[in-house]
Amino acid sequence: MSRVLVTGGAGFIGSHLVDQLIEKGNQVVIFDNLSSGKLEFLQSALSSGNATFVEGDLLNLESLNKVMKNIDIVYHLAANPDIRLGTRVTDTDLKQGTFATYNVLESMRINGCNKIAFASSSVVYGEAKLMPTPEDYGPLFPISLYGASKLGSEGLISAWVGTFGFKAWIFRFANIIGSRGTHGVIFDFIHKLKKDASNLEVLGNGLQEKSYMEVVDCSKAMIHVVERFNDDLNYVNLGSLDTCSVTRIAEIVIERSGFGDVNIHFTGGDRGWAGDVPKAMLDPTKLNVSGFKCDYQSEDAVRLTADILIQEIGLLED
Amino acid sequence: MSRVLVTGGAGFIGSHLVDQLIEKGNQVVIFDNLSSGKLEFLQSALSSGNATFVEGDLLNLESLNKVMKNIDIVYHLAANPDIRLGTRVTDTDLKQGTFATYNVLESMRINGCNKIAFASSSVVYGEAKLMPTPEDYGPLFPISLYGASKLGSEGLISAWVGTFGFKAWIFRFANIIGSRGTHGVIFDFIHKLKKDASNLEVLGNGLQEKSYMEVVDCSKAMIHVVERFNDDLNYVNLGSLDTCSVTRIAEIVIERSGFGDVNIHFTGGDRGWAGDVPKAMLDPTKLNVSGFKCDYQSEDAVRLTADILIQEIGLLED
Repeated sequence: MSRVLVTGGAGFIGSHLVDQLIEKGNQVVIFDNLSSGKLEFLQSALSSGNATFVEGDLLNLESLNKVMKNIDIVYHLAANPDIRLGTRVTDTDLKQGTFATYNVLESMRINGCNKIAFASSSVVYGEAKLMPTPEDYGPLFPISLYGASKLGSEGLISAWVGTFGFKAWIFRFANIIGSRGTHGVIFDFIHKLKKDASNLEVLGNGLQEKSYMEVVDCSKAMIHVVERFNDDLNYVNLGSLDTCSVTRIAEIVIERSGFGDVNIHFTGGDRGWAGDVPKAMLDPTKLNVSGFKCDYQSEDAVRLTADILIQEIGLLED
Repeated sequence: MSRVLVTGGAGFIGSHLVDQLIEKGNQVVIFDNLSSGKLEFLQSALSSGNATFVEGDLLNLESLNKVMKNIDIVYHLAANPDIRLGTRVTDTDLKQGTFATYNVLESMRINGCNKIAFASSSVVYGEAKLMPTPEDYGPLFPISLYGASKLGSEGLISAWVGTFGFKAWIFRFANIIGSRGTHGVIFDFIHKLKKDASNLEVLGNGLQEKSYMEVVDCSKAMIHVVERFNDDLNYVNLGSLDTCSVTRIAEIVIERSGFGDVNIHFTGGDRGWAGDVPKAMLDPTKLNVSGFKCDYQSEDAVRLTADILIQEIGLLED
């Protein structure tokens, strides 16, 4: 049994990770500012008796220091989840990404905890020339401010490993989807259909194509990687083997909605917005060779997520 | 003729770059907080009538906005120059590196300038497994806090290119040495010999081995790269073809000092301090193929620098 701190633990991915950590017999401290996380995601975790929730912000080092006592490992997942925001507001990712990671590392150093597992992203690869993209790919030139904050955080973590003897596990996530989703393409499509059941607007030309991973698969994979990889600095792509296009996602969401006659409109262009990576396919060999198998590949994960989010969001206008 | 803003323009490398930019017929605005830069380095620049000096800090966005009017291109060189500092003070590189770069980019965006040339470093490669290390090397895991700030800044720049249509030139410097040096191994050795002419302490086992580049070569190379490379995002190693070991540097400095009988002591270990990269050799093919040739290779640059810094610092105790 370990004492585990999960930042962003009330969020979409964080709350699923908390559930899995508890199932594995850990004591979990959840730290979240509830900016996009929700207490209702923690119902089963908190009722288990093996988790405590602390509302707090990572930009406040003192409140972070209070929870960093006798922690064996930190899973640092907190971040601004809205990649598109950076096109309008330029300091959110810097603060809630890079600075927040600095505070987490600094609080760990001060309080004697030296193991960190970090939710990075495939967006650090930018518009990679090599697909599927392996972990050792270079150069790393993200095209979104969100991506810059993930790369900046990775660099801080590797510096704490090289300078202060930390041990780290960096996960580069594919697009993670599933229950409790609070953003992303499937979430957006369902909300659009809820407003207008006969028209669905797709940002870009619909040919954008990415790897998707189901959120419970993702949570299990994180814990698996921490258990199986033992270098000082470990970095692993977390994704399924295949991809799914945005047009295919639109078709699946429409199909699962049961709406009969929906026109799909494309806004055009090769990407959804400035800073959107049009194609992303991770090479998951390192994860798979280590013995992990996803329950869902991309298209199955999309179908499952569509069903769950239609249930969670509802399709009738409020 | 362009109007060029040079951040850190009163510093070691910055002041040489300013001299070269003026020689090329540009109007230069020098922005520096004089934390390690010196006005005396700007004597010839300021007397040319083609440069103006503004004392200010990059962490103050308003003072930066004042100089960002009608600027065609920014050479962003300002940073904490002392890599070792990060082992003791953990927020200097984050602030003076990553945050400062954010402020530069944001001030440019607000004021309609979209061309940035940035002084990055070979330390973004961390302890690279491949040497000489080419620009597309991955993964990028710096081991110093200084390195983390350079990688974080590169990520911000690539995000501004991908999101806001910026154009950028990223230079990954070898160890830059030469006149006006204010830090580094040759500088340290001369100061040590000044205190004690019979003993020289070398941090580590002396086998550390790195590429060195002379500072005027470096300044010319930066301007060359901006003139010759025309992608939206350009990234080029700036270094000579060879390397020089720390022991060899100690021998050269002693030889040039004229001191007869100096004992070299090694503190031991494979590196000078936690976060020091023991071996760094850049692959300069991209720079060379573009038509640039250094006047000095590593050992010649060390010899020249030893002579100049012995002159600038003096060898007799004050």
